[in-house]
Amino acid sequence: MVPHLVTALTGPINELEQRVLDSTPAIERWFRLEWMEHTPPFYSSADIRNAGFKLAPVDTNLYPRGWNHLTHEMLPLAVQAAQAAIEKICPEARNLLVIPENHSRNTFYLANVAQLVRIFHMAGLNVRVGSIDPAIKSPKKIELPNGDTVCLEPVVRSKRRLGLKHFDPCTILLNTDLSAGVPGILEELYEQYLLPPLHAGWPMRRKSNHLHSYEEVSKRFGKLLGIDPWLINPMYAKVGEVNFGSGDGVDVLTSHADALLTRIRRKYKEYGINEKPFVVVKSDNGRSEMGVVTVRDAKEIEALARKHKPRSGAAKSPAERLELIVQEGVLTKERVHDGVAEPVVYMMDRYVVGGFYRVHADRNPDEDLKIPGASFVPLAFSESAHLPQPGAKPGASAPNRFYMYGVIGRLAMVAASYELEATNPDAEIYE
Amino acid sequence: MVPHLVTALTGPINELEQRVLDSTPAIERWFRLEWMEHTPPFYSSADIRNAGFKLAPVDTNLYPRGWNHLTHEMLPLAVQAAQAAIEKICPEARNLLVIPENHSRNTFYLANVAQLVRIFHMAGLNVRVGSIDPAIKSPKKIELPNGDTVCLEPVVRSKRRLGLKHFDPCTILLNTDLSAGVPGILEELYEQYLLPPLHAGWPMRRKSNHLHSYEEVSKRFGKLLGIDPWLINPMYAKVGEVNFGSGDGVDVLTSHADALLTRIRRKYKEYGINEKPFVVVKSDNGRSEMGVVTVRDAKEIEALARKHKPRSGAAKSPAERLELIVQEGVLTKERVHDGVAEPVVYMMDRYVVGGFYRVHADRNPDEDLKIPGASFVPLAFSESAHLPQPGAKPGASAPNRFYMYGVIGRLAMVAASYELEATNPDAEIYE
Repeated sequence: MVPHLVTALTGPINELEQRVLDSTPAIERWFRLEWMEHTPPFYSSADIRNAGFKLAPVDTNLYPRGWNHLTHEMLPLAVQAAQAAIEKICPEARNLLVIPENHSRNTFYLANVAQLVRIFHMAGLNVRVGSIDPAIKSPKKIELPNGDTVCLEPVVRSKRRLGLKHFDPCTILLNTDLSAGVPGILEELYEQYLLPPLHAGWPMRRKSNHLHSYEEVSKRFGKLLGIDPWLINPMYAKVGEVNFGSGDGVDVLTSHADALLTRIRRKYKEYGINEKPFVVVKSDNGRSEMGVVTVRDAKEIEALARKHKPRSGAAKSPAERLELIVQEGVLTKERVHDGVAEPVVYMMDRYVVGGFYRVHADRNPDEDLKIPGASFVPLAFSESAHLPQPGAKPGASAPNRFYMYGVIGRLAMVAASYELEATNPDAEIYE
Repeated sequence: MVPHLVTALTGPINELEQRVLDSTPAIERWFRLEWMEHTPPFYSSADIRNAGFKLAPVDTNLYPRGWNHLTHEMLPLAVQAAQAAIEKICPEARNLLVIPENHSRNTFYLANVAQLVRIFHMAGLNVRVGSIDPAIKSPKKIELPNGDTVCLEPVVRSKRRLGLKHFDPCTILLNTDLSAGVPGILEELYEQYLLPPLHAGWPMRRKSNHLHSYEEVSKRFGKLLGIDPWLINPMYAKVGEVNFGSGDGVDVLTSHADALLTRIRRKYKEYGINEKPFVVVKSDNGRSEMGVVTVRDAKEIEALARKHKPRSGAAKSPAERLELIVQEGVLTKERVHDGVAEPVVYMMDRYVVGGFYRVHADRNPDEDLKIPGASFVPLAFSESAHLPQPGAKPGASAPNRFYMYGVIGRLAMVAASYELEATNPDAEIYE
């Protein structure tokens, strides 16, 4: 199924598409050389926004969920990539333990877990799901609406290893971003491969680090292609700590938003773009109750601060000390069935293995779509649609469009790899 | 498209299928460990025969043609595998030179070349086709009935490298089995990757070496699965030189055929198989004019010798000194649209990437199908059909059947890898 695309098919983005297609061998070689020096995340996904004049990843997930939205046709690619990933990490592997989110009774989420189990089973591993939720005291089988079954089993921790009763995995795959903090049960596991590493979880990870790495990647890639890196890079600024209760930091946020809006306005002028610039305010460390807020004028920050001001007495609550960033807003001009849509690209090891459109009928093109009510339409990454089709008219070919999305997704993956290297607490430092 | 299968769905083969499925993690781990020690052929294909009671590869091709019979849906898998292969061999690669058969005006063959060019282009390489045919003196564009175009360009040989005018490849991919001999132009290329290596071509390669390696592989794999290796291994004997003109060696051929028929008869008795045993006589070094001859009784050899006796005077022609082997005949019980069919599995690097059925309406289940008049029906390897489907009834699931074919195909590939190591003329020998 190829969703109907109504992206504006003229202007700079088609130039970019053409340049990406013409440079396929150079691009693929560039990625190969990157992967000689750097280790790709075990798995990842990137939310991409195509503004017609600009194309950029706006969020890179290192614990991707939503594998269940990949179609049946995409499974062989994911399995082949999983085989490549396992072969590199632990060729002697027999057993893989998947650790899901705690407390999740969300059957959509569990369908994602079931899909991950399926992929790694097909790749040739014994796969079981170990819950670190203290509420899971005995194996719990959950039947899902799609006919799949997930069995959550309580993990067993020994001094040096984590497993299940009679199940000793060599690799542990986390499918939780550890937002609630790193549980002690996952620490000091030196004998097993714990993937992704703990510092990829939100207790340690910062979006600003990722965006910093991505900026570097986009500069190098822009040079390779001979393009302004801005065409693929969302500008950003790290605001630091903001407390809407006490008002601390709100001025810093306002001035950063204002400065960023000015920079965007300048770029729009340079390219003759007749759109209203906007920025998004979001937390630097994962998701917060505030969500992702679209700001079109720095004056709106005041109202934002008022809205999120905690009720009296709670002002000193540490939960209200937010770490924020402002990021250049990237419009999405993709539409699926009249709903505002953004492509999400899924990657396993260094390969693009599939994707889908996140669609939200009630949102605007300058708003975050990752909120309840979103639906998912498989991207035509199957049937070789993520492979370039030489000769097709720029902008008119869905496969070429998707190949370009796959390239941008992989740039985000390279950035994540840099980011994880730079933030590795166990890295040896050579001076 | 899933071709209708009419394989006898009872008896030992289903036991084997069940055992293969139950052992998926052990099997995949076994392959992973093999590939730690051995290098897979760059690409390969295996002809497989499913007798209902026995399943075995009967021919392993190291210069597979027929890539055009892979469906569009299988392309992403082939491209991903090609990326993995290139990454291992030459990550800095920009240019790949494909060398096709000489003198081929066969548009089916050229469609295969076009498909190879497409796969490696999509994998991110500049791909061009270099002909070593002395008749090709300038670039020759050939339009194919399916709309593809192949451009044959004359190769340019310098002292140390082979390329085209203004095109210097780091890797040269042969798609010719060099039956006519190794041309000097391919020799002494020490600076470029020449794949497959020259000793994989018929001037040096011997089927008996491959079958010897496969026997070893099947024993080890049989042990892993706890099965009689005969269930996956076609027995064989190396006959040596036979001259139908002078009669030299015919007696040796007869006695080998007779002995092999006796061994098969014993096995059939052991398993209670009510089929007529047969052997095939074929040349040890590629294809000969004789073809692949089915022999059900050693007495038939006499008639065979008479039939292939050269006309008077030609008896001393060296072309008539055949190197022969006899191989256990494996019935094929697969039928597609009433035609006798055998699956052919295509592999790139260590991955199964697709396959098809070779179908011949005019042949018997104990005859070679690789003769003019064969047609090709895509195997349902796409849509995850080569991935195991746990829980399906043995024998009743096309995907499980195809997963098993993929396992057998990969065993042949492991054997080819052993074979190429053992026959490498440049190998360093440690005593």
